[in-house]
Amino acid sequence: MAKILRVNMFQKELKWEDVPGKYAALGGRALTSQIILDEVPATCDALGELNKLVIAPGLLSGTNAPSSGRLSIGGKSPLTGGIKEANAGGITSQKLASLGLKAIILEGRPEGSGWYGIKISADGAEMFNANDLAGKGTYEVTSICREQYGSKVAVVTIGTAGEMQLLSAGVANNDTEGNSSRYAGRGGLGAVMGSKRVKVIVVDSPGTFDAPVKDSERFKAAAKKFSRILLDHPVTGKGLPAYGTNVLMNIINEAGTLPTRNFRYGRYDKACEVSGEKLAEVAVARGGKATHACHPGCVMRCSNVYPMPDGKVCAPIEYETAWGFGPNLEIGDLDVVAKLNYICNDVGLDTIEIGCALGVLMEAGVIPFGDGNAAVSALEEVGRGTALGRIIGSGAAVAGKAYGVTRVPVVKGQGIPAYDPRSCKGNGVTYATSTMGADHTAGYAVTANILSVGGTVNPLFAEGQVDLSRNLQIATAAVDSTGLCLFVAFAVLDNPEGLPAIVEMINAQYGVNLTVDDVVALGQNVLKVEREFNSRAGFTKADDRLPEFFVNEELEPHKTKFDIKDEELDGVFNF
Amino acid sequence: MAKILRVNMFQKELKWEDVPGKYAALGGRALTSQIILDEVPATCDALGELNKLVIAPGLLSGTNAPSSGRLSIGGKSPLTGGIKEANAGGITSQKLASLGLKAIILEGRPEGSGWYGIKISADGAEMFNANDLAGKGTYEVTSICREQYGSKVAVVTIGTAGEMQLLSAGVANNDTEGNSSRYAGRGGLGAVMGSKRVKVIVVDSPGTFDAPVKDSERFKAAAKKFSRILLDHPVTGKGLPAYGTNVLMNIINEAGTLPTRNFRYGRYDKACEVSGEKLAEVAVARGGKATHACHPGCVMRCSNVYPMPDGKVCAPIEYETAWGFGPNLEIGDLDVVAKLNYICNDVGLDTIEIGCALGVLMEAGVIPFGDGNAAVSALEEVGRGTALGRIIGSGAAVAGKAYGVTRVPVVKGQGIPAYDPRSCKGNGVTYATSTMGADHTAGYAVTANILSVGGTVNPLFAEGQVDLSRNLQIATAAVDSTGLCLFVAFAVLDNPEGLPAIVEMINAQYGVNLTVDDVVALGQNVLKVEREFNSRAGFTKADDRLPEFFVNEELEPHKTKFDIKDEELDGVFNF
Repeated sequence: MAKILRVNMFQKELKWEDVPGKYAALGGRALTSQIILDEVPATCDALGELNKLVIAPGLLSGTNAPSSGRLSIGGKSPLTGGIKEANAGGITSQKLASLGLKAIILEGRPEGSGWYGIKISADGAEMFNANDLAGKGTYEVTSICREQYGSKVAVVTIGTAGEMQLLSAGVANNDTEGNSSRYAGRGGLGAVMGSKRVKVIVVDSPGTFDAPVKDSERFKAAAKKFSRILLDHPVTGKGLPAYGTNVLMNIINEAGTLPTRNFRYGRYDKACEVSGEKLAEVAVARGGKATHACHPGCVMRCSNVYPMPDGKVCAPIEYETAWGFGPNLEIGDLDVVAKLNYICNDVGLDTIEIGCALGVLMEAGVIPFGDGNAAVSALEEVGRGTALGRIIGSGAAVAGKAYGVTRVPVVKGQGIPAYDPRSCKGNGVTYATSTMGADHTAGYAVTANILSVGGTVNPLFAEGQVDLSRNLQIATAAVDSTGLCLFVAFAVLDNPEGLPAIVEMINAQYGVNLTVDDVVALGQNVLKVEREFNSRAGFTKADDRLPEFFVNEELEPHKTKFDIKDEELDGVFNF
Repeated sequence: MAKILRVNMFQKELKWEDVPGKYAALGGRALTSQIILDEVPATCDALGELNKLVIAPGLLSGTNAPSSGRLSIGGKSPLTGGIKEANAGGITSQKLASLGLKAIILEGRPEGSGWYGIKISADGAEMFNANDLAGKGTYEVTSICREQYGSKVAVVTIGTAGEMQLLSAGVANNDTEGNSSRYAGRGGLGAVMGSKRVKVIVVDSPGTFDAPVKDSERFKAAAKKFSRILLDHPVTGKGLPAYGTNVLMNIINEAGTLPTRNFRYGRYDKACEVSGEKLAEVAVARGGKATHACHPGCVMRCSNVYPMPDGKVCAPIEYETAWGFGPNLEIGDLDVVAKLNYICNDVGLDTIEIGCALGVLMEAGVIPFGDGNAAVSALEEVGRGTALGRIIGSGAAVAGKAYGVTRVPVVKGQGIPAYDPRSCKGNGVTYATSTMGADHTAGYAVTANILSVGGTVNPLFAEGQVDLSRNLQIATAAVDSTGLCLFVAFAVLDNPEGLPAIVEMINAQYGVNLTVDDVVALGQNVLKVEREFNSRAGFTKADDRLPEFFVNEELEPHKTKFDIKDEELDGVFNF
């Protein structure tokens, strides 16, 4: 029987609870969001005693379903003030599922200034004193835990940014090689974990594919079919495995929707210098890897391992990170991008939010655009907790307030990633309306806008974008609940057999009889749950808007503004 | 005929407009709030091109009505994101009214980095290059303008904080002696003026009491009667004229509702060291003044002139400022309080917001509680624009975010002043529900809660507080529209002839036939207008709440929590 582990940090109490019936069919994002709605008062202080951090593997995690090892972490976001689910790769999800864990709920706040760790294994769970790990970066913490508990453990940890409760602190997970770089990055959930004074959660279990499956033959057949669907699609079978997500750099630049110089332009003349092609070339030449799986059983292997000139390794450099530290700051040097990425991973920061924050500080003239050394120096201040470091670690919105900047690319307080909403308008709709704040993964309209996946919708015009974003937001909420990597959507959107194969795997695993319609309903329900939380927290349609400058400022090269009407945006959630 | 001066900073155009009929009966706050609702899109960026700054004298300003020289400045607040009216003494209001100016509307933003001044006289209005004034403090700017244009001018200016568009930047006005210390302080309207790149507005007119009055005999009789009502009341006739607003320090301490050490306790053992009594003693001994009028014709003369050890003069030190830099920071030294006050006046910062921000930084351990030198050093960083200075100047909410503090005393992002809501619960209702964010002047329940003015409501219990706050908020909105100092309310609440006398003055001045009920309706309508703006801006009842710690943490010495139910708070605006 699956269990929920409830950890009360005020009472220092760990309890194993049966899974209530209403949660039985939920996993991943569906489960974290439902628990947050049920248990967290929406108006509470996100860093106070009433918020909770919920960690849940997806429905299919811990099985042989390909690319199903994604982990959901949920809570009230200190960055946005709304609900948050941040989704990460790494090996945690599969290990939790293999241990029969449906979710971990961290609640309460301890008194005093101590730090705590939680260790979970087949024998049970215990809390330990983690004061010796406090002040350490995620790489070191993960390394220490792997030495202490063995190289098979999953280590969920925060860096010093999380200890400082900085609003852009993320939660790190390691991959099989022990790299602590798989981040539930967005929305400041690392600060929530820090507010509970939990430095680390160690999942000590050798299991990866041990989640129970009711009908294993039926499951195996469906998994095999699904694997084939992924391998046959040009994006999931070829593009991603060859160059990783950063294959997008040249594509998005070509499309003229690559935000450059804090969203001033749509193209960057040195984009190719920080592209996936360049990355693969340099990585391989230095003995790294152009392709790498973030968790066992992934067929897309879109990650990479980038050896830096100082001998350290940054693994991986994702497209959105390369964008945030590259074009966004007018830095055309992959080694600088890697260095900034590495610091974020170690200190425990969301790279997208930090990219946006540095862009705003460059807009303010605090750091010169294009100055990689200055950017690195500034970012290093976060770990030292200086005032500037605090501002950077608090994200783009706070940086904008502190420096009186009006060109601040955020929605609901969260930084806008890697695709300009004026020339990829479907993403603009997602940024504006997502329950998560600006989030490309919440409804990735780049598919039909740029990549001609799942149809074609002209990215420069308003027509069709609301429908596109709505459908993608629903599908994403469902996928985020399965533990499948969102990238399976590329194949699923183009292959009518994709979604039925996913449903077949779930049915075989749990012995249920879901239909494709049920999965759509699941996605819709997740969004309704999240909207309800946000509504209680005080969000209104006024929050479902892009910053003014996207509406008023024309973007080169297409000379487009974001012109989707407020009434249309208000129609996204019409179900 | 009264006129509106509209200044478009983008086109550098000044236009004199007739007053539309719907604005004819409005003045002060009623007028600024109505214009903001009518002309400013509520979701706009408060520091962007769409926000406007409206400056309006009260209905009775420029007449011989006693204590009627208050000025209203309105706009969308960059601090709260909602509507804002900040109210100041000084000589500006009377001069504008004497020139027949109903309002000044500043709109648009110029291109480039230049600074501008606006000069208004009986001959008209003009814009001038103010680059030579940029970077200068308010004292120097005011002094230069008085040298250049004569000592009778009113100088409306921002300090460097406003130039930097810091969220707690205020707008300074001078008194008759040229002290630039009468602040429309709250809500960051100095940053809005800075965003328009207007450094100074000079009102070059010798007139003070030249506003037209239709029936001057009738007016004179009513004004005389009203003056007598003020002089006969113990607060307005004795307490305030003797010790100024800081007469409250010992009273509020005795009542156990003096927020001490960032709202940790309700009493401060060194309160008497920073009290009005002590202030009067020291000020007079050093050749200053224990009593002083902020504008001509005030009978309450509640201000003071405090000579500092360095030879400079701080005028005045108000109670809320003495609280913010005294008990709130555990600083029991009036000279340190004066120094912090002086820096704020010069750099152009709201003293209440800065007091709250410094309290939060002390809570975070950045500055030690009680360390006056450290507080002064930190505050001096604001003018230098360092990262820490930027955080301080951005106010308590941003400081709390940057340093991961949960005990942050703000509502709608604006710092809570000088009266703890747990033991002065009527003020707590006002803080929670005011359209302005936390604001003691929006509905000053200290009257019935502590001072037994206008009845008695036990400050420690929930009963009666909602009704009390509602009635005061309505009355305040009306008073703020007349140009009368809010302190007249002390007398008006206790004397049934007070309000009729005000109505009689308005009727005599404008040749109208208002009743007392009309004035109540005016107050209600102002609040409705402001609530409508805030609703459009995205505010909901979730914003009408106090921070969590006031509900959860017991306050010494009365061991009280803020226990007024959410449903009751939601009933404040039931009209």
